Amino acid sequence: MSKAKALPLIETDVQPCCPPLNERPLTADEAEQAAVMFKALGDPVRLRLFSQIASHTDGEACVCDISDVGVSQPTVSHHLKKLREAGLLTSERRGTWVYYRVAPSVMASLAQSFSASR
Amino acid sequence: MSKAKALPLIETDVQPCCPPLNERPLTADEAEQAAVMFKALGDPVRLRLFSQIASHTDGEACVCDISDVGVSQPTVSHHLKKLREAGLLTSERRGTWVYYRVAPSVMASLAQSFSASR
Repeated sequence: MSKAKALPLIETDVQPCCPPLNERPLTADEAEQAAVMFKALGDPVRLRLFSQIASHTDGEACVCDISDVGVSQPTVSHHLKKLREAGLLTSERRGTWVYYRVAPSVMASLAQSFSASR
Repeated sequence: MSKAKALPLIETDVQPCCPPLNERPLTADEAEQAAVMFKALGDPVRLRLFSQIASHTDGEACVCDISDVGVSQPTVSHHLKKLREAGLLTSERRGTWVYYRVAPSVMASLAQSFSASR
């Protein structure tokens, strides 16, 4: 008899952002939490970094993969830290480099926040 | 013979924001444009105002409908202006009041920007 467990087919832990913005008014706490994410994306350089990582092979990238955003590498690192602190990226050190990844739940949650349900 | 034209079933003009952020790196111009929207949503009070309007009956509200966001009415008006300037709201004066509305294309476009296509 196999001990293998059935893996969930869908990701159920999709709550880092907020309910659909057209469902009901956000509470003060929800707005405080969600605004942090939008503020982090509200900078052109950070938004480009976020899209470079989100669109990179396997959905992850290190600073060594980042190119052509018009700022120095220390500035890139600074912005990546801001995105991570806002809960938009996770990071993992492997050898010399830190790899950044956009959690799939973040994309799903942000998509959901703009999904008209009516 | 009827002169009635068939109405489009879906809204095709959904381009106020940006391509899916995990599709390809945004260009500098795309990032500049999209960051304006996220920056406008990156403030808790503005985010609450946005969700109050988006979730209000018929998707529109005037300042007279806004309640309980913890700031004065002139401050509410100031934030609504910022949201409008960012392309997130449209406004229309009817009688005494200005009515604000979230364009459906804005919600669809922002949802699309986070929609994983892979």
